[in-house]
Amino acid sequence: MVRTATHEVHTSGQGDVHDISEAVTAAVVDSGLSSGIVTVSVVGSTAGLTTIEFEPGAVTDFSQMLETLAPQDGHYRHHQRWGDDNGSSHVRAALVGPSLTLPFIDGTVQLGTWQQIVLAEFDTRARRRQVVVQIMGE
Amino acid sequence: MVRTATHEVHTSGQGDVHDISEAVTAAVVDSGLSSGIVTVSVVGSTAGLTTIEFEPGAVTDFSQMLETLAPQDGHYRHHQRWGDDNGSSHVRAALVGPSLTLPFIDGTVQLGTWQQIVLAEFDTRARRRQVVVQIMGE
Amino acid sequence: MVRTATHEVHTSGQGDVHDISEAVTAAVVDSGLSSGIVTVSVVGSTAGLTTIEFEPGAVTDFSQMLETLAPQDGHYRHHQRWGDDNGSSHVRAALVGPSLTLPFIDGTVQLGTWQQIVLAEFDTRARRRQVVVQIMGE
Repeated sequence: MVRTATHEVHTSGQGDVHDISEAVTAAVVDSGLSSGIVTVSVVGSTAGLTTIEFEPGAVTDFSQMLETLAPQDGHYRHHQRWGDDNGSSHVRAALVGPSLTLPFIDGTVQLGTWQQIVLAEFDTRARRRQVVVQIMGE
Repeated sequence: MVRTATHEVHTSGQGDVHDISEAVTAAVVDSGLSSGIVTVSVVGSTAGLTTIEFEPGAVTDFSQMLETLAPQDGHYRHHQRWGDDNGSSHVRAALVGPSLTLPFIDGTVQLGTWQQIVLAEFDTRARRRQVVVQIMGE
Repeated sequence: MVRTATHEVHTSGQGDVHDISEAVTAAVVDSGLSSGIVTVSVVGSTAGLTTIEFEPGAVTDFSQMLETLAPQDGHYRHHQRWGDDNGSSHVRAALVGPSLTLPFIDGTVQLGTWQQIVLAEFDTRARRRQVVVQIMGE
């Protein structure tokens, strides 16, 4: 059995990280399925999905690490191609990945207490993000 | 319902990135399934799968970031063990990951217009890569 | 059809990497399912799952790369918040990711000979880790 939910997130640009755990866990409960997996994905090549302890310190640390690895004002060939300014966004998104799959048991997504599902915006401008929550199980 | 497709990619070595979106989306259409998830994986520990805007600039930026993080000519303990020269390949592959799972709805894999599924070769020599496309849904 | 297995791993702290391939492949065989996907996840926000050639050299290289990227004794805002010392753990875990999904065919998880499924401990202290193995297929 497959159940689909969608969730829209309005972001403010690079470094903006949203906790979408509640939307995902609610979709799993609403599916009526007991056991299976939930795949969460963000459409587009300049955002990513992962889990983190969602408190401002850890979230800032994560963004800071990515800034060191792929600085927003660095030199990117992508800029030369399109006149874009978001080369850092593409590089970060390819590294973090656009989707996340987690098991659920008895209707409960298997996360730790301090572990949240987050959408990380990497683009250099505000975006309206479409998150797809695909639930499969029995 | 489960449908399996396989896809072979011939790569030229580290930094070679292949767009395999068409192979994946065609396999989903051929499955006849409407809604579900597709898991794409590459067999081996020196390649990775992710999504990126597949244009030469962004692809080069991604490889360049990985080169900074894990230089091909760096010192690796893996080299001492086997006499191999691909320590950078193993490190990059473990970081990027060997698989990707994405939802599909009405037979359409949920990707953005500028978002392609890519196989990134990290090994230091040409390889023949086996990609497994596992489609589950209804 | 969904089959669930769980696996406990005792880790010694940051840099400790465990090969859990045998537990995962045994769970797939025990499920009696022939074809499908297996999702492996670790509960908590300071560990990660990926694949790597499980030999001490490559494993050390991977940890060393992460140490360069997110040094254990670096400055983290997460430390200021809770008095914790594991900011590097959260950053590494968010980057590597908490789960892995792989296809299996004829009961065989699609891995290369030199490719093992590993649980990487990133926390700064010993932990008892719960791994969930969710198998779906037919």
